[in-house]
Amino acid sequence: VAAAGATVADLGERAVIERIRAAAGAAPDWVVIGIGDDAAVVEPPRNALEVVTTDALVEGVHFDRRFSSAADVGHKALAVNLSDLAAMGAAPRAALLSLALPGGFAVADLDALVSGFLALAAAHRVSLIGGNVTSSPGPLVVDVTAMGAVGRRKMLRRGGAKPGDELFVSGSIGRGGAGLGVLRAEAAGAPHTPAFESLVHWYRRPAPRVRLGVLVGRNRAASACVDLSDGLADAARQIAAASGTGIAIDAGALAIDPAAKAWYEQRQLDPVRAALGAGDDYELLFAVPRRMRSRFAAAGRLVQDAPLTRVGVVTAEPAMVVRREGRSEPLPAGFEHFGPAS
Amino acid sequence: VAAAGATVADLGERAVIERIRAAAGAAPDWVVIGIGDDAAVVEPPRNALEVVTTDALVEGVHFDRRFSSAADVGHKALAVNLSDLAAMGAAPRAALLSLALPGGFAVADLDALVSGFLALAAAHRVSLIGGNVTSSPGPLVVDVTAMGAVGRRKMLRRGGAKPGDELFVSGSIGRGGAGLGVLRAEAAGAPHTPAFESLVHWYRRPAPRVRLGVLVGRNRAASACVDLSDGLADAARQIAAASGTGIAIDAGALAIDPAAKAWYEQRQLDPVRAALGAGDDYELLFAVPRRMRSRFAAAGRLVQDAPLTRVGVVTAEPAMVVRREGRSEPLPAGFEHFGPAS
Repeated sequence: VAAAGATVADLGERAVIERIRAAAGAAPDWVVIGIGDDAAVVEPPRNALEVVTTDALVEGVHFDRRFSSAADVGHKALAVNLSDLAAMGAAPRAALLSLALPGGFAVADLDALVSGFLALAAAHRVSLIGGNVTSSPGPLVVDVTAMGAVGRRKMLRRGGAKPGDELFVSGSIGRGGAGLGVLRAEAAGAPHTPAFESLVHWYRRPAPRVRLGVLVGRNRAASACVDLSDGLADAARQIAAASGTGIAIDAGALAIDPAAKAWYEQRQLDPVRAALGAGDDYELLFAVPRRMRSRFAAAGRLVQDAPLTRVGVVTAEPAMVVRREGRSEPLPAGFEHFGPAS
Repeated sequence: VAAAGATVADLGERAVIERIRAAAGAAPDWVVIGIGDDAAVVEPPRNALEVVTTDALVEGVHFDRRFSSAADVGHKALAVNLSDLAAMGAAPRAALLSLALPGGFAVADLDALVSGFLALAAAHRVSLIGGNVTSSPGPLVVDVTAMGAVGRRKMLRRGGAKPGDELFVSGSIGRGGAGLGVLRAEAAGAPHTPAFESLVHWYRRPAPRVRLGVLVGRNRAASACVDLSDGLADAARQIAAASGTGIAIDAGALAIDPAAKAWYEQRQLDPVRAALGAGDDYELLFAVPRRMRSRFAAAGRLVQDAPLTRVGVVTAEPAMVVRREGRSEPLPAGFEHFGPAS
């Protein structure tokens, strides 16, 4: 137990690692060596390929500590990685947590960050098997590596979409980006609106579509998949670029979250363009051959919390367009955390 | 090709990733999906366990850009991870590179960092299979995850040392810590001394003992192993703590690098205590049962660039001591990048 007000610098590196190890609890049998040696050792997946991804959350770039609690950051740092695994059809198995902590970071915040991470890990049966702890002279950096497994013929890729395939998105779009907008507006003095709380919650605690990705991979219903970490417009571009196709999004069919739509309208923004361009959604975008439509729908029915909505089609012509009321307009740019300075 | 003086913010995230992908070149057959999808996909090691580790270098904590070039940082970020794999007896296979880049970071420095990383990767047949790129509002952060393989019965651990086992260290100690001291002294106005250049080189470009770790793991000659990232004193403590033993280091037998010794003496420091407490060496410390001594030496002879020196013994009594001229003194504290603020 750390003293009230204690910081991670008071504890020191070893004690921080020991604290995380204790919180992580017992590991499953296939973890041969977990936290505490020079490296972790695991049994590799049997009769499956291994899928591995890394994604970092950097304070001041991906989160603002006024808007997200330490527990939110821990949750989201794992969520964004599980979302990447889901987009490959992979079932997650293990994660590594690499922390760069400002010297004044409170032990209570460390505990909260780790518990936010571990709660999501437990929900998806992901083992925290190792990581790294260092100090940071600047921002809090939470870098996660997640590992999973997928059958060779059950893997989802970005390339592989064919003209005529239909595009489906899970859940609804616009929530994450709108949630961040709400937080910023409220920090600038806008009144609190209870109707927007669901947006803020999704921004802070996105639920990666782990089961959906695995099920669609297993029944081999999709020709391509990508996650919406940088928004639907960006996701559509990724599939088109990797598949050598174009894409046409149907503005009237977009599953824009109702609260996000209300938020965008209150801000006098076009909900279609705003929702297409906003990041932080962590839904999945699938390309589905027409003959696979019922098989794809069967996977969707097994995952009741994430309805699947047809939002467009893959086209032979290599243009990226939004079709609205019989006219075509260019697809807006995606969201880039790391954009040109302009 | 980027314009002279261009920064990574001018390029944007996608172009940075594309640049790294192009530099990484072709991947071996067992890499099913490399850089560019939501995650990497690899064939897991066959008939072996998988070993995975992550370690970050943070500007202002682990390196100073006045003292290390971008290429040095790229080299060292991979080296420290390969050293962790070597300490498990694991042969490295793949790595992920997660970069948090200050907006003003030059494209030329990005290229140098990546080429420093890739040159060491090529030397050890490590494939760069993925990673992440984001901006940083503060320091440059280079976070690497390295993956390797080891036979189940060939794995080296920290625990497992028994009283009576002898301790051996590879190469020599004190170089890394002394090299940093030399750089700091020269920055403060001390004259440049050519005799100390080897120390600075080792600090900037440590050579992880990959082959030695694998060979000692394979011939099962060691009861415990750990790397010297935080110095020999710390490494000895790790083995003792994990094995439930004590350790006695023989001051007269320490393989202190001659240039490091000269540097410490010039600074009027006790070379024994300074070398024991200094970090950044990346040698390996082994505990070896006496009956395995010749088998261990056989592994050492195959790795001619890293002589093995007997530096002490594992003791039943749980004390950590240095024996010098017939007397015992306490082992100095190890080096902690993330120490108490005091």
